[in-house]
Amino acid sequence: MQINVIKIGGNVIDVEEKLQGFLKSFAALEGPKVLVHGGGKIATRMAADLGIETKMVEGRRITDAPMRDVVTMVYGGLVNKNIVARLQSLGCNAVGLTGADGGAILSIKRPVKTIDYGYVGDIVEVRSSWIQKLLLDGVNPVFAPLTYSKEGEILNTNADTQASAVAKSLAGEAEVNLIYCFEKRGVLLDAENNDSVIPVLNSEAYAKYREQGVIYAGMIPKLDNAFEAVRSGVRKVIICEADDILQAVRGQAGTTIE
Amino acid sequence: MQINVIKIGGNVIDVEEKLQGFLKSFAALEGPKVLVHGGGKIATRMAADLGIETKMVEGRRITDAPMRDVVTMVYGGLVNKNIVARLQSLGCNAVGLTGADGGAILSIKRPVKTIDYGYVGDIVEVRSSWIQKLLLDGVNPVFAPLTYSKEGEILNTNADTQASAVAKSLAGEAEVNLIYCFEKRGVLLDAENNDSVIPVLNSEAYAKYREQGVIYAGMIPKLDNAFEAVRSGVRKVIICEADDILQAVRGQAGTTIE
Repeated sequence: MQINVIKIGGNVIDVEEKLQGFLKSFAALEGPKVLVHGGGKIATRMAADLGIETKMVEGRRITDAPMRDVVTMVYGGLVNKNIVARLQSLGCNAVGLTGADGGAILSIKRPVKTIDYGYVGDIVEVRSSWIQKLLLDGVNPVFAPLTYSKEGEILNTNADTQASAVAKSLAGEAEVNLIYCFEKRGVLLDAENNDSVIPVLNSEAYAKYREQGVIYAGMIPKLDNAFEAVRSGVRKVIICEADDILQAVRGQAGTTIE
Repeated sequence: MQINVIKIGGNVIDVEEKLQGFLKSFAALEGPKVLVHGGGKIATRMAADLGIETKMVEGRRITDAPMRDVVTMVYGGLVNKNIVARLQSLGCNAVGLTGADGGAILSIKRPVKTIDYGYVGDIVEVRSSWIQKLLLDGVNPVFAPLTYSKEGEILNTNADTQASAVAKSLAGEAEVNLIYCFEKRGVLLDAENNDSVIPVLNSEAYAKYREQGVIYAGMIPKLDNAFEAVRSGVRKVIICEADDILQAVRGQAGTTIE
């Protein structure tokens, strides 16, 4: 079995046209597939409309109890269920899940060291056997970036990490591609030029580009995570634009990390 | 296989203590089970907080587009996912669903005759094979009162009707009990006396009590629906308090309709 695990972020979710285009491509993608979506700006807007303050500590967003309710509503309800209903209408049988559903992804509330992040989950375990069973039945999981603790709390969870954890857990039994949709066409040689995509990146080339300063800043943790996923058994990680997933899985767009 | 399909309404969801008590009983209930929950007052409160007006026409609530977003968030997200996470912590493997998930419950947007109800769904089809498959895998569906149209829209759906449709669809393959949790202990001989529960009600007795005016008003459509479910193959319908479900499935509490 080959499984594609695809992550989209706020830049896709917030723009109706982009989302519809992406969902069409996702529905058209053959074989078993999993979608993990981020949050987008709707939660921030909803919190503001409800008079809930977005708390930041040292530049990091804190998920206090009212904000946890907002992300549970918006990510787990509004965004997730609308994506699922639209995929159904596009002929793709999807099921919208959080980590709590079917006990799919168990977390612990992040321990307080210097910062108390609040209701944020660090993933402990993925019940991949159930995700596989859904896929074998032709049902494609669509995950909101939420997990749960054994105490029965919903926990806000980083969507990139969640996608990677799901992909790694499935890698034991299947050939898994992990596809990060991104606002650029891939990893670029020149950050200003969207046509300068590096088609394939291995760890030697990555080390070289880092040394040269070609790859820098926010791309470094992203790529470190990608290489870590490959070392953990994921066949390849692809970084591409949401529009390009059909080409990217065939190696015709984006950057493939292997 | 014996399956219990249980419906709880706002009176349970809105009171933390009641909800926790009910969830403990639900988790303790043996065998495959399905929960259908109503909305409660949180959606109305949330709409008010967001400055969304609750529209009524001839005393009936209308689901316009902003209100549909609110119920999708609150029923499908906040209420549903918190119930699921809490059931997990109580040792009950639950999955939170709307009708869109797995294509479980397809509706049509209610046609406009005299009133345009907006985004309200009338159920067309329940994909019971998938619900059965989940139950056989030991995963208990928890449905929010939301379904979907083939056009990919989420539709607000009456929870009583949804519970009944799920129960009837499963009745072909299993012995199904449909349990409506209610603010009273059952169908009462004297509406003012919670100890006057009628333990068993058949259609002859129901006709007699209606004639005598013992059963009246809001109980009539509720009971008409219950008898209709029994005629459609549901083994029995039980009307009881949320606290009493464990006794009620053994015929030791509530009113059994057969």
